[in-house]
Amino acid sequence: MSTMFASNAMAADFCWPIRVYYEDTDAGGVVYHARYLHYFERARTEWLRAFGFDQAVLANELGAAFTVANANVVYRRPARLDNELMVTVVVSRIRPASLQFEQVIRREDVVLATGSFRIGCVDAVSYRPRAIPETLVQELP
Amino acid sequence: MSTMFASNAMAADFCWPIRVYYEDTDAGGVVYHARYLHYFERARTEWLRAFGFDQAVLANELGAAFTVANANVVYRRPARLDNELMVTVVVSRIRPASLQFEQVIRREDVVLATGSFRIGCVDAVSYRPRAIPETLVQELP
Amino acid sequence: MSTMFASNAMAADFCWPIRVYYEDTDAGGVVYHARYLHYFERARTEWLRAFGFDQAVLANELGAAFTVANANVVYRRPARLDNELMVTVVVSRIRPASLQFEQVIRREDVVLATGSFRIGCVDAVSYRPRAIPETLVQELP
Amino acid sequence: MSTMFASNAMAADFCWPIRVYYEDTDAGGVVYHARYLHYFERARTEWLRAFGFDQAVLANELGAAFTVANANVVYRRPARLDNELMVTVVVSRIRPASLQFEQVIRREDVVLATGSFRIGCVDAVSYRPRAIPETLVQELP
Repeated sequence: MSTMFASNAMAADFCWPIRVYYEDTDAGGVVYHARYLHYFERARTEWLRAFGFDQAVLANELGAAFTVANANVVYRRPARLDNELMVTVVVSRIRPASLQFEQVIRREDVVLATGSFRIGCVDAVSYRPRAIPETLVQELP
Repeated sequence: MSTMFASNAMAADFCWPIRVYYEDTDAGGVVYHARYLHYFERARTEWLRAFGFDQAVLANELGAAFTVANANVVYRRPARLDNELMVTVVVSRIRPASLQFEQVIRREDVVLATGSFRIGCVDAVSYRPRAIPETLVQELP
Repeated sequence: MSTMFASNAMAADFCWPIRVYYEDTDAGGVVYHARYLHYFERARTEWLRAFGFDQAVLANELGAAFTVANANVVYRRPARLDNELMVTVVVSRIRPASLQFEQVIRREDVVLATGSFRIGCVDAVSYRPRAIPETLVQELP
Repeated sequence: MSTMFASNAMAADFCWPIRVYYEDTDAGGVVYHARYLHYFERARTEWLRAFGFDQAVLANELGAAFTVANANVVYRRPARLDNELMVTVVVSRIRPASLQFEQVIRREDVVLATGSFRIGCVDAVSYRPRAIPETLVQELP
């Protein structure tokens, strides 16, 4: 029973596939550690787009940008060239001016990395903190 | 008195200068958040080189590589195009198979970001954990 | 009549979609010029994969790698954040140890950039030129 | 005699040193091909700064940005981790709205790559072509 619920919960997570290219790897033969932050961000961007919000539109029309305030990444196993990865997105906390994300990068069933990100909403020009636009807050899960 | 000691301690930190180029910035007009991890790593690499250890030599001759096991970065203020930054390196803990680093990125006196990194020593081919080479341990502060 | 043939020829071109993320842009608000080379390479990699050849497999099992010998890119119009791009791949010449590619990046019907690339086949370890593996040559169009 | 002149001419070239870090390399163990464009640009940026012009100042105060219109890179030998490279900058042609650069990347005396770049001057916001600011033209060699 709990398995079914866990399975349902997992099914509900937003997932985004990533393919590893040469550009992502380093001379150690593995994906460069900073590149995981790109992967995590691509998934958050697509999660946002799934609610109908492009970052370019947010910046140009609503004057709001999202900026990483805190990043905590645990690297468990290396990803390698040509790997197909899945990146999940879960919002664990919604505050007036920031969102907390918990994310996982997997290769099939193997967890390669986990990331916790606090994403602050800022004015797109001054980069000063501001409230998340109301139209976006209403759409969030 | 404590100020003097603090000042001495700061003087002893390893520092590495970084210049911000277009390649480092994003459409928000600021340095892309993942790029700070590059800056932190350049400084750790140069810190290691100051002890006489190139990463290429470590990998090819001693069969050892350093890999990021955990990264925790707090972003305080954005860096921008053409900024001159200083990145400091402090080792807070030396274990048989890993090093803990505390690092700060400043623009003049302003702290832009802080980073805590646990760096594991791995076999350069298999990426399995291994002890830090003895010749290196003996040189560490 | 020539239109129909041209249309057929275009239909036959290999295409790969690319989404522009913050990581791809710079402080000018446009995609960073070097990033187009990543896009061109992703498309070539997927073109190769469509023939059943992963680059990782090529390197590990056949000991062969492809390396860029010459790159010529003409930038016509800037790509911007959140754009959806299409990258085409055409092989214009097959030689024993190199391939010549002609590629175009479009946003809808607008050509943003064109790229000509001579890609050499090299030994995966020494990076010395070598013949393209026979099993791959037989599959090429 | 011609040797002496050649030597003088080389001495007059603007040079910028680059260190290769893990971030620059790929799983082939060499510097990723697109990264050379970063190196070429860093050298052009520092060449410009040597005349007293920061790109950020150009964009914010004069409303002008430089954008790559054409890039032609010939890759001769791979650069590898920890290499120290020298990048030279020569302006071969000055036009009202563009500059032509001829650049070389060397490791000691070995030429690793050459690059020809046509750099257009554009409006910093619209990215439409415009004349190079007069204050800059007067300073160019």
